Amino acid sequence: MADDRAIAPVRMAMVGGGPDSFIGPVHRMGAELDRRIRLVAGAFSSDAARSRSTGLGYGLDEDRIYSDWRAMLAAERTRPDGAELVAIVTPNHLHLPVALAAIAAGFHVASDKPATATLAEALELQRALEGSGSVYALTYTYSGYPMVRRARAMVASGAIGTVRKVVVQYPQGWLATPIEQQGDKQAAWRTDPQRAGVGGCIGDIGVHAFHLAEFVSGLHVDQFVADLAATVPGRTLDDDCNLLLRFGGGARGVLIASQISTGEGNDLSLHIYGSKAGLIWHHDEASRLTVRHADGRMEVLQAGAGPQGMGARLPAGHPEGFIEAFGNIYCDVADAIRGQRELIDDRVPGIKAGVRSMRFVEQAVMASAQGAGWVALERDGA
Amino acid sequence: MADDRAIAPVRMAMVGGGPDSFIGPVHRMGAELDRRIRLVAGAFSSDAARSRSTGLGYGLDEDRIYSDWRAMLAAERTRPDGAELVAIVTPNHLHLPVALAAIAAGFHVASDKPATATLAEALELQRALEGSGSVYALTYTYSGYPMVRRARAMVASGAIGTVRKVVVQYPQGWLATPIEQQGDKQAAWRTDPQRAGVGGCIGDIGVHAFHLAEFVSGLHVDQFVADLAATVPGRTLDDDCNLLLRFGGGARGVLIASQISTGEGNDLSLHIYGSKAGLIWHHDEASRLTVRHADGRMEVLQAGAGPQGMGARLPAGHPEGFIEAFGNIYCDVADAIRGQRELIDDRVPGIKAGVRSMRFVEQAVMASAQGAGWVALERDGA
Amino acid sequence: MADDRAIAPVRMAMVGGGPDSFIGPVHRMGAELDRRIRLVAGAFSSDAARSRSTGLGYGLDEDRIYSDWRAMLAAERTRPDGAELVAIVTPNHLHLPVALAAIAAGFHVASDKPATATLAEALELQRALEGSGSVYALTYTYSGYPMVRRARAMVASGAIGTVRKVVVQYPQGWLATPIEQQGDKQAAWRTDPQRAGVGGCIGDIGVHAFHLAEFVSGLHVDQFVADLAATVPGRTLDDDCNLLLRFGGGARGVLIASQISTGEGNDLSLHIYGSKAGLIWHHDEASRLTVRHADGRMEVLQAGAGPQGMGARLPAGHPEGFIEAFGNIYCDVADAIRGQRELIDDRVPGIKAGVRSMRFVEQAVMASAQGAGWVALERDGA
Amino acid sequence: MADDRAIAPVRMAMVGGGPDSFIGPVHRMGAELDRRIRLVAGAFSSDAARSRSTGLGYGLDEDRIYSDWRAMLAAERTRPDGAELVAIVTPNHLHLPVALAAIAAGFHVASDKPATATLAEALELQRALEGSGSVYALTYTYSGYPMVRRARAMVASGAIGTVRKVVVQYPQGWLATPIEQQGDKQAAWRTDPQRAGVGGCIGDIGVHAFHLAEFVSGLHVDQFVADLAATVPGRTLDDDCNLLLRFGGGARGVLIASQISTGEGNDLSLHIYGSKAGLIWHHDEASRLTVRHADGRMEVLQAGAGPQGMGARLPAGHPEGFIEAFGNIYCDVADAIRGQRELIDDRVPGIKAGVRSMRFVEQAVMASAQGAGWVALERDGA
Repeated sequence: MADDRAIAPVRMAMVGGGPDSFIGPVHRMGAELDRRIRLVAGAFSSDAARSRSTGLGYGLDEDRIYSDWRAMLAAERTRPDGAELVAIVTPNHLHLPVALAAIAAGFHVASDKPATATLAEALELQRALEGSGSVYALTYTYSGYPMVRRARAMVASGAIGTVRKVVVQYPQGWLATPIEQQGDKQAAWRTDPQRAGVGGCIGDIGVHAFHLAEFVSGLHVDQFVADLAATVPGRTLDDDCNLLLRFGGGARGVLIASQISTGEGNDLSLHIYGSKAGLIWHHDEASRLTVRHADGRMEVLQAGAGPQGMGARLPAGHPEGFIEAFGNIYCDVADAIRGQRELIDDRVPGIKAGVRSMRFVEQAVMASAQGAGWVALERDGA
Repeated sequence: MADDRAIAPVRMAMVGGGPDSFIGPVHRMGAELDRRIRLVAGAFSSDAARSRSTGLGYGLDEDRIYSDWRAMLAAERTRPDGAELVAIVTPNHLHLPVALAAIAAGFHVASDKPATATLAEALELQRALEGSGSVYALTYTYSGYPMVRRARAMVASGAIGTVRKVVVQYPQGWLATPIEQQGDKQAAWRTDPQRAGVGGCIGDIGVHAFHLAEFVSGLHVDQFVADLAATVPGRTLDDDCNLLLRFGGGARGVLIASQISTGEGNDLSLHIYGSKAGLIWHHDEASRLTVRHADGRMEVLQAGAGPQGMGARLPAGHPEGFIEAFGNIYCDVADAIRGQRELIDDRVPGIKAGVRSMRFVEQAVMASAQGAGWVALERDGA
Repeated sequence: MADDRAIAPVRMAMVGGGPDSFIGPVHRMGAELDRRIRLVAGAFSSDAARSRSTGLGYGLDEDRIYSDWRAMLAAERTRPDGAELVAIVTPNHLHLPVALAAIAAGFHVASDKPATATLAEALELQRALEGSGSVYALTYTYSGYPMVRRARAMVASGAIGTVRKVVVQYPQGWLATPIEQQGDKQAAWRTDPQRAGVGGCIGDIGVHAFHLAEFVSGLHVDQFVADLAATVPGRTLDDDCNLLLRFGGGARGVLIASQISTGEGNDLSLHIYGSKAGLIWHHDEASRLTVRHADGRMEVLQAGAGPQGMGARLPAGHPEGFIEAFGNIYCDVADAIRGQRELIDDRVPGIKAGVRSMRFVEQAVMASAQGAGWVALERDGA
Repeated sequence: MADDRAIAPVRMAMVGGGPDSFIGPVHRMGAELDRRIRLVAGAFSSDAARSRSTGLGYGLDEDRIYSDWRAMLAAERTRPDGAELVAIVTPNHLHLPVALAAIAAGFHVASDKPATATLAEALELQRALEGSGSVYALTYTYSGYPMVRRARAMVASGAIGTVRKVVVQYPQGWLATPIEQQGDKQAAWRTDPQRAGVGGCIGDIGVHAFHLAEFVSGLHVDQFVADLAATVPGRTLDDDCNLLLRFGGGARGVLIASQISTGEGNDLSLHIYGSKAGLIWHHDEASRLTVRHADGRMEVLQAGAGPQGMGARLPAGHPEGFIEAFGNIYCDVADAIRGQRELIDDRVPGIKAGVRSMRFVEQAVMASAQGAGWVALERDGA
């Protein structure tokens, strides 16, 4: 902030995020929270009236509200004040075509997870990014939380000793009944293989859990057993996932992701146990991190206290949440666009994480369908 | 959002909020969160370099970054794109002069609490507002939380029966040691009668507790006994406050506000008991509201589930916090400025709440100093 | 346990504790938990059939089940295997006559709180105890909890610095409706001045809160303001109590005891803040003690871990509760009877605490009735 | 209790439970808590001095304190006041010989888990029990908790709909370091295959988790994948267990049992999700049961409120714990001995549960060692 010129915000266009969207507004609020990014254009819906309504609600100029994202990319790339960054918040099947077109047109990309609908698509996207100048970021939300970042830093510093066990759980209950047959749009596309891709729950929230486990532990899953089920009658995609994990180095773990855990909201949790201490984080108490020491001591660390640089904006006791976590990721995206490319694939998930997640999704779906036991999860050349 | 034109955001200028400010950035982020308001100018500090640094950090045009708030008001009132709303985030002693000047110049005002440094000042401000066209709002943060608004609605609807007891507690620990003597700027002005006004802790956070109790219960405090102490050696203003309350209609209560509750963060809490049920809210779990029924049933209500209109942006399980609570208040401020004046003094605290709070502060300070027992709290003509 | 002879348990007789009693069985279970005491006789009810039913349920010999407690005392004092200790678990108005008779007959006494129905009675009891050889203990339950004892030890050791603030709260909701008019026996005698004595809620649970505050802080309440209310129509005794406290040495505090806090169970809590740290204990999480340090660190201590001698029987993570807390007090009673008289008035409340509590009750009731402000609480020659 | 004669308590002898025992005293306190059972004899240790010290500490007659459990069985069977019930609280390898001898001599048996050290032993025990008149009970502690029993009743009543998912987790950290090499006796025998049997963690606490899952869900595990690890160098038995489960009827689940979850105490938890609601129970908050409804409502049920017959002795808000849970099981044991044999294998685990658990342990150990995938868990003729 001690610069001698105003910091020009990164100009952002959004694809998706129309009137019924949950995640579109979150991207918008998070991206703009710190004034590092500014929404300037959007193709919020292919229905012109719906897109217009959303854009006007944001106060956008009418001529920068589009119903065709291809038209938007074409128009924005030539404007002197045109968007630099494209946020993709559509159903999964559009992630690839939008991202490819955006990259081809020279935009940077921030995409909601999962990277694509299939592994093949993710690999295609990876190839497209090679040699391009585009920053590509995947919004694995939970990696933006201050106490997740602090947990990761503690593990990396050796504070908990050698990691031995990682349990990650993501219980949701909103798909416990077949609401996709009752007009719920969010449920409809997520349970539709044409729009969601190969994975249901595993692709929707399993990837969050998978990323969180690797992000904080600093380890890679090498083997797994997957049991994925389509529990609610009428579904073809999984809505409940249970996996055993083995990490490189010998740590073991469990991953649970479920959308039929009736009544549950969004309490993603991580338990990571090392030879010296254990760390426990729950999304329902996102500003806290519990440390359990081998000698029985139990500490509760709080966001806003302790080391700087974890992303807390406010002192301890002033709750921050989901939007702020998005904000932290988008700050890093802005920094990456403005030059700090090294943030991508380190603190901010990029296409590597995208490919890895899709490989995980696809192998898990296949292994489960085959009733397989232990399966090796391939590592991409890293 | 279904309007046919873009919604023009309210243009805001800020007074205060320089590099060391805690609350300035919160006002900025909250105000802008929903794109209803846009910061366009600021006099962030009387030190030109510090003000400039802050303003450039926000990406403001250099010519709209001021070091003299009077100059800012003069300049902004004449610009066609000038600010409409002035946010006051200075130490308390400047609340009145800035507000008076802003009102005189035709601006709307959103002021941090307390309204002013003394009751006399609050009454002067009230007179200035009479007949002016200015919207005046006081950011009693906690009234912006969805579950506080839901508690209020439940009480008003009779869901808990007749209110009998109200316990409001605001424990902080950050002034447990004399950090004002060790260079802490936030502590320095709050413990200085010249800048803080007549109340220390009572004016800083006691007013939050007082407002919350009346806001949710719908009752007025009629009598109280106050025990205010300057605990840490060297202080003249109170840093610890304990009060018994009696409300109109016969309910009783307790108000605790403390800044020497060592180790405590910011866990303001409200317990309100009616003849049918009790409601419990804690800032540390701001997205939850516990309902305890006379028959023993215990329910936990969550923000983002249940009735609309309480201010939750996200579905249950996605934590929102302090910034979002500010955002809710600022949305109402924008609505009020754009025509819905009735929101002020109803859902959004205005000068009435300001005068009432300052009367409370001043009477509490005086009664405590005199060792008085029960004291009647005057009601302003309402 | 390394002695060379069997440890003979203290033989106990019980007065009160018939079929509808809540606290009688708790005394019995607590007293016998560690095999230091054995129930051998009882006058559980003045209704012979009810007393017999209770006694047979405990497996007592028929000839040691009485309906007249005077007859029991007469008989047991002359048996070679007669009771040594009398547990008094009747409504308050019988505490004095039973205790006086028991002491006169050479028994030791363990009495439920409050000591007596009035201060005059407590003083009479104190005189009777002087020069007698009887051990007299008051079962202030909460002083038996391991984490309460640990908190007390921490305060005494200086671990939290100088005590500045003590907030004790005892919210219950079971008398929020007039259940005493609907056949509830527990409510009937507690709301009846003839059986409960001068205090309602203040005598029933306010004394627990008062004792806990002094027990842990090591301080004495010197002054208070009391606001006691009979909230539910038809009551003459208080059912809701709010008090401001000032302790010797300058600490301040608040005491809340309520039986109309609708929906609340029995979550007595203590917050005690010193110049270095704060301690927080809640009965709902009785096996934990939270320590909040001035530097922001927050620790959670657990019963069964840490220093010995606090009364935990089991390692951390194995919950103990109300019965075990009674057991800890009764262990001390047994030790006192077997020779360690110094435990009484130190770790175990005796008649000093009884007189002090009744003075507190009577002064609080009177001061509140008079609408008094600050009142000095007399200290008994200690 | 309304009988016309005193209820004679069941006379109990104990094998094991000497000076260093954790669980022996818990059995003793639990068994005696409700005066349904009375410890009259014991062979607490094969070291005569240690056994004597323990027995005298309990106030036992010297002639009923033994160092040889065979001698005890011989002596007690012939005394007119001899023990009727033998409590087995030894290391696992002694469970079978003591139980067989006790049954042969006509005693009833209450054994700590696991039933035996191996499946073959459990089957041998089962054969011995057939045709004998002995009651045999296994103290799966957690099945004695009121809220576990309530959860089971709710599931059985259809309150949560069809069970779809069961997650049971038992994290402990006390074996995170090799304390068995540092003189810890509890750790020494549990990590020694000669004394613990085929399973380490899986036999010690995994069986608790397994039993809890089946007990509450009313379902049987039909298939599993097991990943058991001996994490701490030097161990041959497992200290960390992760399993995927499939239940009859199609429900899926996860079982985690670990003794290297550093810093964890004993917070066994159960999450069970049905088509209508989810139930969540944590040992750390054993007196509460959370119900999460499909429509988003969240209720917290409390022990001591609600339906009778779940085993709570005290009204809501008065915590009960581990000893009381044992007490509930022992009450049922006493009832079974006094005639209600049907309680065994229904509410109280008997040899069926014992055989089943040992089959689970042995198959899990074997399958994990082989790196197997899905394995069928055989059902015993039920």
